[in-house]
Amino acid sequence: RGPREVWKKGGRLLSVLLAVNVLLLACTLISGGAFNKVAVYDTDVFALLTAMMLLAVLWILFYLLRSARCPDALPYLDAHAGPIWLRGGLVLFGICTLVMDVFKTGYYSSFFECQSVIKILHPLIQAVFVIVQTYFLWVSAKDCIHVHLDLTRCGLMFTLTTNLAIWMAAVVDESVHQAHSYSSAHGNASHTRLTSDPERTGSTAGGDPCPCDTAICQIFQQGYFYLYPFNIEYSLFASTMLYVMWKNVGRLLTSSHGHGHAPPRVSLFRETFFAGPVLGLILFVVGLAVFIIYEVQVSGEGSRTQEALVSYYSFNIVCLGLMTLVSLSGSVIYRFDRRAMDQHKNPTRTLDVGLLMGAALGQYAISYYSIVAVVVGTPRDLLGGLNLAHALLMIAQHTFQNVFIIESLHRGPPGEEPRETPNKEPCQGLTFANLDALHALPACPSTPRLASPLEGPPEAVTIISTPRGHWRRRCLKDISLFLLLCNVILWIMPAFGARPHFSNRVEVDFYGSSLWAAIVNICLPFGIFYRMHAVSSLLEVYVLS
Amino acid sequence: RGPREVWKKGGRLLSVLLAVNVLLLACTLISGGAFNKVAVYDTDVFALLTAMMLLAVLWILFYLLRSARCPDALPYLDAHAGPIWLRGGLVLFGICTLVMDVFKTGYYSSFFECQSVIKILHPLIQAVFVIVQTYFLWVSAKDCIHVHLDLTRCGLMFTLTTNLAIWMAAVVDESVHQAHSYSSAHGNASHTRLTSDPERTGSTAGGDPCPCDTAICQIFQQGYFYLYPFNIEYSLFASTMLYVMWKNVGRLLTSSHGHGHAPPRVSLFRETFFAGPVLGLILFVVGLAVFIIYEVQVSGEGSRTQEALVSYYSFNIVCLGLMTLVSLSGSVIYRFDRRAMDQHKNPTRTLDVGLLMGAALGQYAISYYSIVAVVVGTPRDLLGGLNLAHALLMIAQHTFQNVFIIESLHRGPPGEEPRETPNKEPCQGLTFANLDALHALPACPSTPRLASPLEGPPEAVTIISTPRGHWRRRCLKDISLFLLLCNVILWIMPAFGARPHFSNRVEVDFYGSSLWAAIVNICLPFGIFYRMHAVSSLLEVYVLS
Repeated sequence: RGPREVWKKGGRLLSVLLAVNVLLLACTLISGGAFNKVAVYDTDVFALLTAMMLLAVLWILFYLLRSARCPDALPYLDAHAGPIWLRGGLVLFGICTLVMDVFKTGYYSSFFECQSVIKILHPLIQAVFVIVQTYFLWVSAKDCIHVHLDLTRCGLMFTLTTNLAIWMAAVVDESVHQAHSYSSAHGNASHTRLTSDPERTGSTAGGDPCPCDTAICQIFQQGYFYLYPFNIEYSLFASTMLYVMWKNVGRLLTSSHGHGHAPPRVSLFRETFFAGPVLGLILFVVGLAVFIIYEVQVSGEGSRTQEALVSYYSFNIVCLGLMTLVSLSGSVIYRFDRRAMDQHKNPTRTLDVGLLMGAALGQYAISYYSIVAVVVGTPRDLLGGLNLAHALLMIAQHTFQNVFIIESLHRGPPGEEPRETPNKEPCQGLTFANLDALHALPACPSTPRLASPLEGPPEAVTIISTPRGHWRRRCLKDISLFLLLCNVILWIMPAFGARPHFSNRVEVDFYGSSLWAAIVNICLPFGIFYRMHAVSSLLEVYVLS
Repeated sequence: RGPREVWKKGGRLLSVLLAVNVLLLACTLISGGAFNKVAVYDTDVFALLTAMMLLAVLWILFYLLRSARCPDALPYLDAHAGPIWLRGGLVLFGICTLVMDVFKTGYYSSFFECQSVIKILHPLIQAVFVIVQTYFLWVSAKDCIHVHLDLTRCGLMFTLTTNLAIWMAAVVDESVHQAHSYSSAHGNASHTRLTSDPERTGSTAGGDPCPCDTAICQIFQQGYFYLYPFNIEYSLFASTMLYVMWKNVGRLLTSSHGHGHAPPRVSLFRETFFAGPVLGLILFVVGLAVFIIYEVQVSGEGSRTQEALVSYYSFNIVCLGLMTLVSLSGSVIYRFDRRAMDQHKNPTRTLDVGLLMGAALGQYAISYYSIVAVVVGTPRDLLGGLNLAHALLMIAQHTFQNVFIIESLHRGPPGEEPRETPNKEPCQGLTFANLDALHALPACPSTPRLASPLEGPPEAVTIISTPRGHWRRRCLKDISLFLLLCNVILWIMPAFGARPHFSNRVEVDFYGSSLWAAIVNICLPFGIFYRMHAVSSLLEVYVLS
């Protein structure tokens, strides 16, 4: 392998600058294209995205070729990176994206003669990009590459930027579509702040030269909008994996780091009390029913919107309340847990924590705006009260769930000997860090010394951890499965189009439709991403606890 | 001192959650209050800010009392935190804020009978807050406290949040004022997206029951708006210092860390070639003249706006071009520099780097939106060309200046022996990290071993660093002084009200006034903060190089 890097931050600086500039350019074009007053056409956006995807594919092929040719380039693998559920989710969402691309190609081919060629090229190139990238991430998510550091960093950052640009474009396109369908269903144009030109959505506006009026074209159009959530999640999953690879470029791992502890093979559901999954499944099914009823009632005639909102909010309040209580009890269980905290450096976990905290901001912001609108606004009725309770519980649920997940991710796996933390000047001769023992000790002299992970005698640990660990472990598994299922149903509702934020008139009347639409359209994608990311983190908690 | 903390991230989590929630609540109220359609009144915002400041003052007094009583609480001081120029700047901006508070009190007292009492109370409480906080930061910016960890973290985060809320309120108030004065000067109301209700700004709208028409009231009003930039910088400086204190809570420092290297006392200007400061001063004076002429011409009759814009853009292009070249040559000089990179953990520096990169995003975004507007928009004239060149140079200048500053901050001080990096498994027996020697070495075996900072023989280093170091050092000092003066003049222009973004009609016509006003009003505060922060970082570069 090559010589040790002298200044890692300097190597990263270049790639970050590249990514920031490309991302801002894409952001400018995409946001400009979303406003129909602005003379940026969606063909410009498509052309930019297509060019970026082609470049990223070329770089990925180059990377795969090079790492196949020179096996010395990869001296280490990061065991924490790219766990199987993340890669499995990526493949699943990738397949859905491919289906979406088929639908999109079909949709644009329906009126081939009056479209620019880039619109049909774009989904085809996207399909190639998805296939190549999924293979690449499946094969090399764990790599810690040690040759061509700067080039690899730039390539990874560029691919990451491409994924984020695709994500932004999809979110904007979906918001435009939502605003459009909402305003056409309600017959007023006050919500179409993000209106699209008729040519883009191929809507049935009068005088459109290329109407999408055949049955198959309608199916294609409907289909690809229902598949957008999967495309969005695919881009975000790929981005997180690319980020971890980027952090791992040029990383040196000691041998104990490199091998890590493979998560124990668990037999699914055998170690739970069944209460969590059963309760979770009940909530999931009820939630699905509530969601379908809500969609039917809201998109039908306007008279039943009130009922739909009441049932929607009631279900959400019950669900969020239960989740809050369950997360809290999980945190309480940890207060009695004697497993040491794992303080190893772990880019995957740091990223997970950062994303959970960051993505929660989106839902927090929406909730605070709702609270202010309900509290300050004058008409206080049942719906206002439900809305207020919903917003407050949403904040509580995000907070306590984050606390629970973050604490879980930092616990060592069960039965493992708690070991020293190499970076923190451990006390001499303290082999396993029982918390009580640590508190009882006099203050450790902070002499830095050789910090190789000392393997404690496994017997001693077994004696400590076995007798009382079992019921706690089963409880934690129940809790994580319950939270997981609840997060899935709370992901489905907004991802597939429930927008009580607009059906409920409180905030729209208080803030005005354009401001409120901007708030929701910017913050909600983060809220949706939070749910999906919480699901993947809770799966990890389930396996590890 | 207390027992070692078991899980530092867990301790931080609570305070971050508190800060996020308080900040979002403040953000909601402040942004809601900025739109006059929304029924959030500025008295609500003032009441919230006053309550937050009172709480923060109480906590600060409690902290000062406690740390005075129990001197064991502070076993270490972080030598990098709170350097003298940051604390000096804080005191300077604090004094200006006090003057602003006097003006504000005078302004609101002018029509005492028809104001709510909170509006007069608010500047008074703010004055108390500024005095107490400035004293607190002056005394304890370097503290690494080791008692009541969680409480201290929450207190620091709450004080930080208070400062950020004050910053947001000031920025919003200034944007409202700018939009108001711009639209009243140009006689059209298309820019008043952020219009305020007449009661708030006390403007001379017809039918106002409390007009500000006495001479002294007008002076107070003018004065306090001109002092806003200092208040804004004060809040941001205090925030950065509080953040570093928060990072230092519970931090353990080895003795070599604790003492650090005090920056050598330099005799100002003696070690430069004078070219940098002289050229910088010339640009500063010319820039000031251009700025005054611009302000006079734009605020006068509309016919001379074109001329004013041409001179403004021309000056900026020359200035930015020179800064880009100078930053680049600084980076070139570093390629010949043999000082090792300092890889110690240093929260102050990490924050500085993050803020430089993050704050630059604001100006980047504005520039990219300008570029798209000029390139895609149809009318291409002199002004469009100047605007395009200005935007491109702005991006280049931010990029290269950031690269130069970040590399400078990571160099060790001159003449210091380059030492081993404790966290990076240094090669055995490699005492000082000459870059050439490091590359020539075979790959170091990555055996983790005791990484105490080995003191190399000082003679050897002196022999290496003295003969060629001198002209490079003087060059670097020249470069940093030149960049510093340029950044000051580029701070003055937008901070005191130059808005070519609106006078120049290209972007307004392209994006529509409301979208463009939103972009500029959100991004420009970060751009202004970037300039001030670059000045403080360049001062550090000047002292250290």
